[in-house]
Amino acid sequence: MTVETKLKAAVLGASGYTGAETVRLLAAHPKVEAVAATGHSLAGKQLSTIFPHLAGPTDLPVVKADDVAWDGIDVAFSCLPHGTSQDLIETLPQRIKIVDLSADYRLRSADLYAETYGRSHLNPARTAAVKYGLPEWRGAELAGESLVACPGCYPTATLLALLPLVENTIDADHIIIDAKSGVSGAGRGLKEGNLFSESAEGVRAYGVGTHRHAPEIEQELNLQSGRRDIGVTFTPHLIPMTRGELVTCHVRGDADQILAALASKYADSPFIDVLPYGSPPPDTRHVRGTNRCRIGVYRDRVPGRAIVIAVIDNLIKGSSGQAIQNLNLMMGWDETLGLGHMQALFP
Amino acid sequence: MTVETKLKAAVLGASGYTGAETVRLLAAHPKVEAVAATGHSLAGKQLSTIFPHLAGPTDLPVVKADDVAWDGIDVAFSCLPHGTSQDLIETLPQRIKIVDLSADYRLRSADLYAETYGRSHLNPARTAAVKYGLPEWRGAELAGESLVACPGCYPTATLLALLPLVENTIDADHIIIDAKSGVSGAGRGLKEGNLFSESAEGVRAYGVGTHRHAPEIEQELNLQSGRRDIGVTFTPHLIPMTRGELVTCHVRGDADQILAALASKYADSPFIDVLPYGSPPPDTRHVRGTNRCRIGVYRDRVPGRAIVIAVIDNLIKGSSGQAIQNLNLMMGWDETLGLGHMQALFP
Amino acid sequence: MTVETKLKAAVLGASGYTGAETVRLLAAHPKVEAVAATGHSLAGKQLSTIFPHLAGPTDLPVVKADDVAWDGIDVAFSCLPHGTSQDLIETLPQRIKIVDLSADYRLRSADLYAETYGRSHLNPARTAAVKYGLPEWRGAELAGESLVACPGCYPTATLLALLPLVENTIDADHIIIDAKSGVSGAGRGLKEGNLFSESAEGVRAYGVGTHRHAPEIEQELNLQSGRRDIGVTFTPHLIPMTRGELVTCHVRGDADQILAALASKYADSPFIDVLPYGSPPPDTRHVRGTNRCRIGVYRDRVPGRAIVIAVIDNLIKGSSGQAIQNLNLMMGWDETLGLGHMQALFP
Amino acid sequence: MTVETKLKAAVLGASGYTGAETVRLLAAHPKVEAVAATGHSLAGKQLSTIFPHLAGPTDLPVVKADDVAWDGIDVAFSCLPHGTSQDLIETLPQRIKIVDLSADYRLRSADLYAETYGRSHLNPARTAAVKYGLPEWRGAELAGESLVACPGCYPTATLLALLPLVENTIDADHIIIDAKSGVSGAGRGLKEGNLFSESAEGVRAYGVGTHRHAPEIEQELNLQSGRRDIGVTFTPHLIPMTRGELVTCHVRGDADQILAALASKYADSPFIDVLPYGSPPPDTRHVRGTNRCRIGVYRDRVPGRAIVIAVIDNLIKGSSGQAIQNLNLMMGWDETLGLGHMQALFP
Repeated sequence: MTVETKLKAAVLGASGYTGAETVRLLAAHPKVEAVAATGHSLAGKQLSTIFPHLAGPTDLPVVKADDVAWDGIDVAFSCLPHGTSQDLIETLPQRIKIVDLSADYRLRSADLYAETYGRSHLNPARTAAVKYGLPEWRGAELAGESLVACPGCYPTATLLALLPLVENTIDADHIIIDAKSGVSGAGRGLKEGNLFSESAEGVRAYGVGTHRHAPEIEQELNLQSGRRDIGVTFTPHLIPMTRGELVTCHVRGDADQILAALASKYADSPFIDVLPYGSPPPDTRHVRGTNRCRIGVYRDRVPGRAIVIAVIDNLIKGSSGQAIQNLNLMMGWDETLGLGHMQALFP
Repeated sequence: MTVETKLKAAVLGASGYTGAETVRLLAAHPKVEAVAATGHSLAGKQLSTIFPHLAGPTDLPVVKADDVAWDGIDVAFSCLPHGTSQDLIETLPQRIKIVDLSADYRLRSADLYAETYGRSHLNPARTAAVKYGLPEWRGAELAGESLVACPGCYPTATLLALLPLVENTIDADHIIIDAKSGVSGAGRGLKEGNLFSESAEGVRAYGVGTHRHAPEIEQELNLQSGRRDIGVTFTPHLIPMTRGELVTCHVRGDADQILAALASKYADSPFIDVLPYGSPPPDTRHVRGTNRCRIGVYRDRVPGRAIVIAVIDNLIKGSSGQAIQNLNLMMGWDETLGLGHMQALFP
Repeated sequence: MTVETKLKAAVLGASGYTGAETVRLLAAHPKVEAVAATGHSLAGKQLSTIFPHLAGPTDLPVVKADDVAWDGIDVAFSCLPHGTSQDLIETLPQRIKIVDLSADYRLRSADLYAETYGRSHLNPARTAAVKYGLPEWRGAELAGESLVACPGCYPTATLLALLPLVENTIDADHIIIDAKSGVSGAGRGLKEGNLFSESAEGVRAYGVGTHRHAPEIEQELNLQSGRRDIGVTFTPHLIPMTRGELVTCHVRGDADQILAALASKYADSPFIDVLPYGSPPPDTRHVRGTNRCRIGVYRDRVPGRAIVIAVIDNLIKGSSGQAIQNLNLMMGWDETLGLGHMQALFP
Repeated sequence: MTVETKLKAAVLGASGYTGAETVRLLAAHPKVEAVAATGHSLAGKQLSTIFPHLAGPTDLPVVKADDVAWDGIDVAFSCLPHGTSQDLIETLPQRIKIVDLSADYRLRSADLYAETYGRSHLNPARTAAVKYGLPEWRGAELAGESLVACPGCYPTATLLALLPLVENTIDADHIIIDAKSGVSGAGRGLKEGNLFSESAEGVRAYGVGTHRHAPEIEQELNLQSGRRDIGVTFTPHLIPMTRGELVTCHVRGDADQILAALASKYADSPFIDVLPYGSPPPDTRHVRGTNRCRIGVYRDRVPGRAIVIAVIDNLIKGSSGQAIQNLNLMMGWDETLGLGHMQALFP
């Protein structure tokens, strides 16, 4: 394959962490190249002045979205905030493949979207139809799609752990998800709570009972199990680390059956490792810098209960890596293209 | 009060973190002074060569326990590992007040102790009778006691959150405790997993379904509620921070009733802050360096469920501070002596 | 002493870290109490909603400076940014004792101030006369002063290490200061570089060759040695920790003489520890949460060179603690009032 | 190139960080594959049980060195401690290419080795002749060599910054190197000082005036400049981060000339970035996970002085990556083989 035949990609919202990570990852992709990067307040700068690690071949000028030469763009990764993302996506030519990393097309119901995100959706029909890009579950449906919605980081780890179980293996009415995320999950926005001095050396919960990823998790669990009334407890915590996400799913079911169901489901998934009993526990350090998810299963001391733990790198499998995996599937390519070489940076 | 009348304290196992913290805290106590510090492999050194922050008035020579002049000792804080602690405690003169920070006298049942800690107990009758030193609950029973068992760090935070609720306010058959601790909770022992390079910038669970603090939590919940069969899910995680512990208790019950029960119970407790709705979330940074516990209550999105979150400094309220609080109560003193002045070191 | 006789203090700029720390420390002071806290954008809130660790007796409403009832104020701690600080200080009644933690009155020369801080000084005569509040050096001059300028955090550690040496013990023409600070030194302002994700797990220099603390260091070294031409290399680095500052001074001189000079100078200083050879190295962890400075001296492998290392807690000895120490001296009190009880929080 | 033709590599001491990192990096090498991993106390385990991130294609059984089938080995990377490394290397067949990451063959003088490392060298003639594998300087000499000594991590960063300058651009008699390293530089050995609780949230110097990397730096500076008497001040500090190393070189010379000399020297070096004035400062985060070195130059405020700052990932350019770069050169290959694809993991 020659350089000329590579898809030309625009990364929208390149001045944030997921945007920068998308640019970084695309540099290793054999069939796609980033040719445009957009930003609002930072337009006019080189990407490498914002993110010096992107100096060299990955560098690009940051331009306003209006100034992108869309004629030369084959695919757009939207790393914009929700709301802003749909505002732009709805204006793009139909011809352009779109991978949306924002929350804008994740919820099938525009009403639920409005309730959850506080604004009405520009295109309720489209959000109702867009495929939810969790590749290990919807991969077969993505070929030929023009717009795919990438799951949130928490839903990614949670659904990878629970979707194989929700129909038959666990009691879907007793799901409690206790989640832990690194600070990069909060993005590059400026808030006191994300300053080093207020997020290092301590832990706190946030969005307890109200986090926007809960409806997304419920939507998929309900779809998978043919129900409409599954509700989950979802309690995220901010951990003093930059990358990484761990979800601890407290469920009712038999650990052996759970482990068997997970191992069976993911036996051929290139990025999912279901750990046998006795393995070292799932650790975000073991997936840092990769598109992988590691899942461990534990029998609880209380009979009939189990704990399922999944870890991902929130900026890769939880966003930019999965976005590329989705594009691969939209294009009918091997889903590991550009992603398979990464091994965790440990220690 | 003159210096001559201060109780003379020996700190057993002063070369570990809880030992050092006990020495540090005692320096601010108006009625007790540390006069002996024991250690095994480090005997012969000054405490300040191991812990330079203890240089000056708090410095002591580290001696072997056999070399302590016990005649001059009024009170012993045992910061020894379990097993080693009872081995020594059982040899001490009856006259000496003992505050045991180890696990050795926490469980009423010697059989449960043997099962949990892998050795038989030297004195089953004594462990069956020793008071469990959670001051906010057993404070009134401690006056005059000669030996008090300090709760584990996780049980301290968990029981402060759940004991007021277990009888009438929550469903005791549906308790799930997801706990997060800083690395100092693992002590000063040398293990690869506690090296900076393997505990920074990541998160993992440990002891899932098997942690020794679960039986201790269950014992107290059962005692409080007059039951024998309450079992809890307890899943601890190692957080990349030194001090601090947060327990997220997922329960069934009405958040308003839970908040009311907690607020009522702790209205007069000098160290417990029950946070009104709308407060910043409980954060370990807000109790770091103090003997305080902050508790927040959240209504879950799933009807009938709630989340109760408690934070402590594991080395103070979770061990050395609570030990001193217990001694104060054993002596019939104000429980805040030597502890009330500490404000959290933030940021 | 009764509560009624306590000095009433206003903390100006209480919504920043040094402001909050001043409020926290004053709670332990036997002769001063904080009665007012000012802030601009956060006026109208309770201090405890910004800094929950200040809930309880230390809580205060945040008000605009214009709304302070200055008649009831005896002393003002200005924790405002430079510029803003003098703007307010120059309007305060002469009667009020002022401890300025900003840079506004540190430089004797208004020209140098203008050159360094980019604005002209409102009161050149006053800044020329104000005492530089490094208590171990100017303590005897502070009694009765109405305005004292607190040194910057870097100058504090650096000057404590070098002032005893600059006249006779080291070659003042070969001073190189390589400094390391925790992120709290950058304050609570919102900048990408201070986000956890961009200041954890890495190190970088900043302000190389241009940092504003260099002229301040030079001013004092020149004053002490009766020279005008001492220039220093000063290179600060941002370290992934919240509190703490370490300065490594590379000098020319004999280590033995240096150690002797430091030990002699600080023999009676309650807050300065000059470490004998063979001690554990100065570590910011050993002074965290205290008003102390620890200084170590090392003979270099290159003959005639030595390394002098000093560590402080930048928010205490580097700002709020030293400010209180200065007030103590202004009032003719024991300089340790309200500060002497603090022991480092380790680990 | 087919798999059959890949060189077969043994990684000696694979249970340490540099060993594990060598195995990880080799997985991306097109012409070499790791086929054996040795360890002592952990022999008998799979590498993935020690380092779960090496599960999958990179996994290997850990065997004792005696049990390696040396006949099938083409190249050995020794990641053993010094001393142990030469003990084994001296027994290996001549045919095997050896890349030694230990200190054993870095010093030309066996006397200096003995003095520095406290044991006599097994093969003084060999250490006198072995090439010092700093590829940007000795790359042209490495082709065909059978044993190459990889520089220490600190010497790598320092020499890359100073070697282009030492002859003509700076005053070699006034070199002061203030170095900062992450905790992984201390390896996986168990010491209290490397525990999270004692290396997080603080900074300290170590080995002041005595660190073993100073003689190594001096050797190369003297060789380059044809002198024998250059001595350097070298003061390393332990930084609370896992990976990364920054050296701040305080020198005498003109910044413009220094920048020009560095830019000229490294214009064609694929891994060295000399930053133009005005760039964001060299930051270890910008090289984390790569084989790159970034160098910045600053004019000091004191006339005639400059500051040169270099950053590397200590486990890659400072050890395992550079080792592979050296092998590439020994084999006459492109030095970037297996290394060029890595971009920094930021944030």
